[in-house]
Amino acid sequence: MYHLTNNDTICAISTPPGLGAISVIRLSGPAAISTCKKIFLPREKELDLEQVASHTIHFGTIGDPDGILDEVLLSVFRAPHSYTGEDVIEISCHGSPYIQQKLIGLLLEHGLRLANPGEFTLRAFLNKKFDLSQAEAVADLIASHSKSSHDLALSQMRGGFSKKIKSLREKLVDFTSLIELELDFSEENVEFASRPELVKLLVELEDEIDLLIKSFTIGNVIKNGIPVTIIGKPNVGKSTLLNTILNEEKAIVSEIPGTTRDAIEDTIGIGEYRFRFIDTAGLRSSDEPIEMMGIERTWEKIHEASIILYVFDATEDSYSDVMQAVSEFKELAEDKTKKLILIGNKTDKLDKLPSGFRDFVEVETIFASAKRKENIHLIADSLVASVKAENLSGSPIVSNIRHLQALQNALATLKRVHNGLDSNLSPELLTSDLRNALHHLGEITGDITSEEILGNIFGRFCIGK
Amino acid sequence: MYHLTNNDTICAISTPPGLGAISVIRLSGPAAISTCKKIFLPREKELDLEQVASHTIHFGTIGDPDGILDEVLLSVFRAPHSYTGEDVIEISCHGSPYIQQKLIGLLLEHGLRLANPGEFTLRAFLNKKFDLSQAEAVADLIASHSKSSHDLALSQMRGGFSKKIKSLREKLVDFTSLIELELDFSEENVEFASRPELVKLLVELEDEIDLLIKSFTIGNVIKNGIPVTIIGKPNVGKSTLLNTILNEEKAIVSEIPGTTRDAIEDTIGIGEYRFRFIDTAGLRSSDEPIEMMGIERTWEKIHEASIILYVFDATEDSYSDVMQAVSEFKELAEDKTKKLILIGNKTDKLDKLPSGFRDFVEVETIFASAKRKENIHLIADSLVASVKAENLSGSPIVSNIRHLQALQNALATLKRVHNGLDSNLSPELLTSDLRNALHHLGEITGDITSEEILGNIFGRFCIGK
Repeated sequence: MYHLTNNDTICAISTPPGLGAISVIRLSGPAAISTCKKIFLPREKELDLEQVASHTIHFGTIGDPDGILDEVLLSVFRAPHSYTGEDVIEISCHGSPYIQQKLIGLLLEHGLRLANPGEFTLRAFLNKKFDLSQAEAVADLIASHSKSSHDLALSQMRGGFSKKIKSLREKLVDFTSLIELELDFSEENVEFASRPELVKLLVELEDEIDLLIKSFTIGNVIKNGIPVTIIGKPNVGKSTLLNTILNEEKAIVSEIPGTTRDAIEDTIGIGEYRFRFIDTAGLRSSDEPIEMMGIERTWEKIHEASIILYVFDATEDSYSDVMQAVSEFKELAEDKTKKLILIGNKTDKLDKLPSGFRDFVEVETIFASAKRKENIHLIADSLVASVKAENLSGSPIVSNIRHLQALQNALATLKRVHNGLDSNLSPELLTSDLRNALHHLGEITGDITSEEILGNIFGRFCIGK
Repeated sequence: MYHLTNNDTICAISTPPGLGAISVIRLSGPAAISTCKKIFLPREKELDLEQVASHTIHFGTIGDPDGILDEVLLSVFRAPHSYTGEDVIEISCHGSPYIQQKLIGLLLEHGLRLANPGEFTLRAFLNKKFDLSQAEAVADLIASHSKSSHDLALSQMRGGFSKKIKSLREKLVDFTSLIELELDFSEENVEFASRPELVKLLVELEDEIDLLIKSFTIGNVIKNGIPVTIIGKPNVGKSTLLNTILNEEKAIVSEIPGTTRDAIEDTIGIGEYRFRFIDTAGLRSSDEPIEMMGIERTWEKIHEASIILYVFDATEDSYSDVMQAVSEFKELAEDKTKKLILIGNKTDKLDKLPSGFRDFVEVETIFASAKRKENIHLIADSLVASVKAENLSGSPIVSNIRHLQALQNALATLKRVHNGLDSNLSPELLTSDLRNALHHLGEITGDITSEEILGNIFGRFCIGK
């Protein structure tokens, strides 16, 4: 159930749960100020909370006739100059779970309602403080754990991405209005919308949406970690390499502690990116059903990957062995969204590089020793460089699957319009497709919404935001 | 190492660690405002942070030339009208650990120092915003998890307790000055301080300090949980009763989740108090060395307890059995700080109460079934009533062992002065003892401090407070 009305007043603990120096309880709605007036005793006795200016802070005690609960600071934001667009009060109290709970209890006793997850941001959206894609970025911003995912979410929250969509949609609205106008004058058979101009506009729209759709690959990997699949024959040291990279990480960057470690899949931050490593079973031809299944899964992981690390044993595998293996990845090499890096492992057992590799330039090759942790930094540098090369600098990036789907739907509908124009489709059918395209683009910015969509989006927020 | 100077500017994350809707970074010191001016871009372009009024909030972006880190609210508090008495800025940012870390990093790059635990409160103390006992209460307030411990800490933080000490100390200062004046005129053998008046004042002081010392028992149990020892012969159902009480608690009060459970010792909140239950081995006469050790430990636990629950088997133990057991606790019954409650367990196996108990009034007796959870609420009510009866309503309560020791030292020295007066001690020796008493009282309020004392006190705070 989602509350789409905002005539009641909500409250929630907005700071992380637990014990700390201070904790913030946030109130939003028409009764925020009058409720605080009943339970807050300002140090300046003559102060009237209903009269104070917006964006001011007031010291005093909070409690009920039974006693004082805490000494607090009250920050007052008056509608519409607040996060939600409503009257907002933030109570900064001592960070004791006991006080937080009691204070929430006191507010509920005074008729406030506990906010649903994301409900403050939902109200901000309903009061047009944000469009929907900006509101969604707030949750991404809070959850982001690398520079790249943080920058992506922040740019979306600040409207970079939805400005693009809005301008696309406005062009389409103008276009559609003209066609619809033709419907009113259908008996006169006039064309208000110049068909060549329209085709030009459609091409432009399709190109821009196509670019946004393509940006999803990078946007998604930035948000969820860039998938790196480690493959190779059995016993070439794939798992050792994975462990070494994961441990090496601590030396390279130790910003975000507490990453959950998993034997098969694990994410680490290197530089400003987050990589998701996928270890696989060894690749070899086999007729054994179980082993074949393992190999099939490995191929699935290869298709998921943005970067493939092919590990070989530098003490055993010759230049031609590796070349043959690489040829199996031809199709991958042709897929521009994937990058292949060869890792010649076990250099600790070598005096010099195996012959043939010295001038090998077709595929980037790094010789390393996972065991002795030699040249692992070269692999890390290469991973970061691979992403940087791919990054669409400056352009808006789509990272949300809901947006991707809306963009794909919009593109498909625009293509139908385009084909319709080519085959002289009637304005009635054209406008129907155009309306559909407008609808899909509107879903991104929230110009078109349903309670279900809003429930899905804001339900993933944390309480108090 | 403790920093007792405040000419540098400190910063810390003041909200609990982890992910949440918002997070607050606090800055205090002379460079707080000028530093924020360098990294904060207000939405109102013409705004000058150095010029804004105290207790105002400003929206904008924070970051460095490399890019925006977040959209934030800046709360400005100008010295001396802040928590620390210095210029303070609180930055309210999105509650992402990534942003919190980066923002702290940015502040450090601009020459700020990470605050030590409790350093904001230390500065408040050094700038005379608080006396020492008030500052200590801030940490207790944050850690308190029951109404009683919360109220105790809040009252101490608001100065109730230290006002009492201060007024005692002032009386003593006047007294001492007069005696010291006599030293200047020692050749004339005058008495500026009337000895009978002084004796009267000493008696008053001793009585008041004695009362504060006695309040420590209740103060300490309120803070750490009221110790309840469960004793009785083997197999009367002591452990079942303990488990039932601990589970029943969830129904009685479920405010504070996550209490660590321990088989032998466990604390729960009932009503506004926190009780610390201590299960013991069965009490019975024995010559076995190991069993004797167990019984000896049980007696230790009995001495620790504020409340003793003596459990007997209502289906087996007769009135005279119980009477005999109670007689063993005569010495305890005489100790007014301990309360004995008899629990006749296993009533589920009884049709009616055993004869003899019906009109039994010497010791409070509750018949219950731990197994069927019958009458457990009567035990809970009785526990709460026991504490309430003991509570020194209205009087200041000492809960800090450091204060207790200072009060005990002050009392001992005052008694020496008292004896000295009775035996006509010279003013020189009298003033020496008086100075000692002043010193001990001053240790509580912080009129007398050492770096070591401050380090001990503030080192126990959380970061950011």
